[in-house]
Amino acid sequence: MDKNLLLVKKESVQDKLEKFADFGRTENNGVTRLALSEEDRMARDYFCDYCKKLGLTVEIDDMGNIYGTLEGTEKKPPIVIGSHLDSVKKGGRFDGALGVIAGLEVIETLIENNMTPRVPITVVNFTNEEGARFEPSMMSSGVLAGKFQKSDMMESKDVNGTTFKEALTSINYSGSIENRLKDATAFLELHIEQGPVLDHSSISIGVVDCVVGMVCYEIEINGESNHAGTTPMNMRRDSLFVANDLIASARESLGKLDDQLVFTMGRLDVHPNIHTVIPDKVVFTIEARHKDPHVIKQVETIVENLAKSPSQEIASINISKLWERDTVWFEPKLRDTVEQSANSLNYTNKRVVSGAGHDAQFIASYLPSTMIFVPSIDGKSHMENEKTNLDDCEKGINVMLHTVVNLMES
Amino acid sequence: MDKNLLLVKKESVQDKLEKFADFGRTENNGVTRLALSEEDRMARDYFCDYCKKLGLTVEIDDMGNIYGTLEGTEKKPPIVIGSHLDSVKKGGRFDGALGVIAGLEVIETLIENNMTPRVPITVVNFTNEEGARFEPSMMSSGVLAGKFQKSDMMESKDVNGTTFKEALTSINYSGSIENRLKDATAFLELHIEQGPVLDHSSISIGVVDCVVGMVCYEIEINGESNHAGTTPMNMRRDSLFVANDLIASARESLGKLDDQLVFTMGRLDVHPNIHTVIPDKVVFTIEARHKDPHVIKQVETIVENLAKSPSQEIASINISKLWERDTVWFEPKLRDTVEQSANSLNYTNKRVVSGAGHDAQFIASYLPSTMIFVPSIDGKSHMENEKTNLDDCEKGINVMLHTVVNLMES
Repeated sequence: MDKNLLLVKKESVQDKLEKFADFGRTENNGVTRLALSEEDRMARDYFCDYCKKLGLTVEIDDMGNIYGTLEGTEKKPPIVIGSHLDSVKKGGRFDGALGVIAGLEVIETLIENNMTPRVPITVVNFTNEEGARFEPSMMSSGVLAGKFQKSDMMESKDVNGTTFKEALTSINYSGSIENRLKDATAFLELHIEQGPVLDHSSISIGVVDCVVGMVCYEIEINGESNHAGTTPMNMRRDSLFVANDLIASARESLGKLDDQLVFTMGRLDVHPNIHTVIPDKVVFTIEARHKDPHVIKQVETIVENLAKSPSQEIASINISKLWERDTVWFEPKLRDTVEQSANSLNYTNKRVVSGAGHDAQFIASYLPSTMIFVPSIDGKSHMENEKTNLDDCEKGINVMLHTVVNLMES
Repeated sequence: MDKNLLLVKKESVQDKLEKFADFGRTENNGVTRLALSEEDRMARDYFCDYCKKLGLTVEIDDMGNIYGTLEGTEKKPPIVIGSHLDSVKKGGRFDGALGVIAGLEVIETLIENNMTPRVPITVVNFTNEEGARFEPSMMSSGVLAGKFQKSDMMESKDVNGTTFKEALTSINYSGSIENRLKDATAFLELHIEQGPVLDHSSISIGVVDCVVGMVCYEIEINGESNHAGTTPMNMRRDSLFVANDLIASARESLGKLDDQLVFTMGRLDVHPNIHTVIPDKVVFTIEARHKDPHVIKQVETIVENLAKSPSQEIASINISKLWERDTVWFEPKLRDTVEQSANSLNYTNKRVVSGAGHDAQFIASYLPSTMIFVPSIDGKSHMENEKTNLDDCEKGINVMLHTVVNLMES
């Protein structure tokens, strides 16, 4: 058949999106499907049943990751497609689920078209990408990649004190370490962008270059609390005023760096936080992301120099780095295959970076990996009104399908 | 006797300070004596017993205010001296108590010197000045002055749901409305400054002109929450950035007004306050105080104009006035008598304003009133290490004593 006639069925994509949204659907048509919850169990069961119905071999590893594999004509490492079925509390219907659905849909389309793949194709559901119930996020892909210790992860507790291990066992998804993803021809993850770039430029496909590196600092300012009515301005050690100056200074300096740099002061706490008391303590975060490590280095210099601000004469300024992570570049050949597939399908596409973290960034550390993005309307994600048009979901899965076919031909 | 030889005894002042500090003394030598608590009841009982021992007539009104009166040779309205015995949680030993002790000490000194006053002298303890257990502060002086409705006050609840009325009855200090303070030759309140002005200029006596007027605004900024990693800077509606700009702008404009203006952004809350999420909402307060209503008017213009900031294109800005109060000027003749008394005693003194509220500001609305301040070391108050040197306490009470004597001579 003409390869360009090989396309997924829109109704089938829609059916799967609706079906998975049923597991934990909220009253506002969002989804609450915390990792290893009863809703997650139902989604997993449905996923396993669907795989079996398609004739796939289903395996589960010791982190609860589920793999459904369609055998190929050759004994080669599989092409692995997937993402995660868990969600944040009151999250959306697309984040994660779309990437798992893509794997099912690609395999189903090949089967319906009587195409037996040359290499095996595996659809994977990674356990606990969100970290919303059990920290950290991207837990299981992180264990596969050796970023996290399994023993630590098993003891991670939810707010009720239940451990990850207990929850995994209770829903009957504790499998064998032998089944872990060890080798692959490629790992491919389709995901919603979770940002506004594609939507604002009316482009359907994001060809993802990398997951950008980031650094996060905490700035603690210690001044002195005094009565707001009785302390003259020149006798104050107002930590909020110092915070105000430091944030303004950081914004000005960071704003002069590269256009693609993003920086956020998302958390800021004032003590004692009473309108009639001069604040003695302010703690805030500065978090910045960029693909280029040289830009991140510039950010670090700017933030660390805040400690030398003239404001230090008013209040002490302590700056500590909470964490950092390097940019993860995806496999250029895979990325190019995605781009060629989108082009041959005549879908609008552009190179983008991922500002958010994904399972693929950990898998990329030991297997050739890349990602495909589809637009998030208004960039909204992790909320009930997260939305990606069905047309774009379909296009994203078609790009995935053609990427798989192209990889098998190469 | 030579009037300048009429002085209080330092040991007696110290004894009383220690004695009252015993009622609710904290491990760090501060005081927790919330209004109408068991500690407050003990302090009240001690106060009543002490008054009776001095031969005073003790009366209690319907708000639990206690009056101890030394009869004069003439049937004239009394000279009333006093303050409050309640404290904030983990407060100091001087705030309030010193003003009550001053009344006792003045009367005791006159008695010991066999001086029968021409007009009656009353020492008063006002109930619940702090408002730390039952809101609002200055509750009972406010009821006397008609600023607050007694019926509302009686229903004011502490954190345990106990009403003011229940607490007042349970400690047996609910008296008669007939006993309320209705007339006075003068009301005089000695208080610690609760600010650093006197201490920093090494002056012992503050001659208080007024309690400064104030205005308090709440500024609410509503932007949009988005992912800190995926949202380009030019697509953000970051409410914290807007708040930062408004605070900087307000500080700059307010800083150009009169030197004596004080302004504080004491409360600032960020939502959702997560380091990886762009804040959609920031709410903060701007509170400013100055004796001159024209300066307060300038403040109002500056704050209200923040709504017209260019930042309103990024996030909506809502500004609401939480409250305001006018400057309360004390009776000039009384103030001058205080000043003359300090001068004749050769105590360093200066005119000051009160940035904090006091019972005297309400009493001043219907009776001739004034205040005397003594230094707070480093301006500290409402904390356990609140401190005023004994020498200054003694001097403050001597100024009170001479003011009383001078008023009786006039």
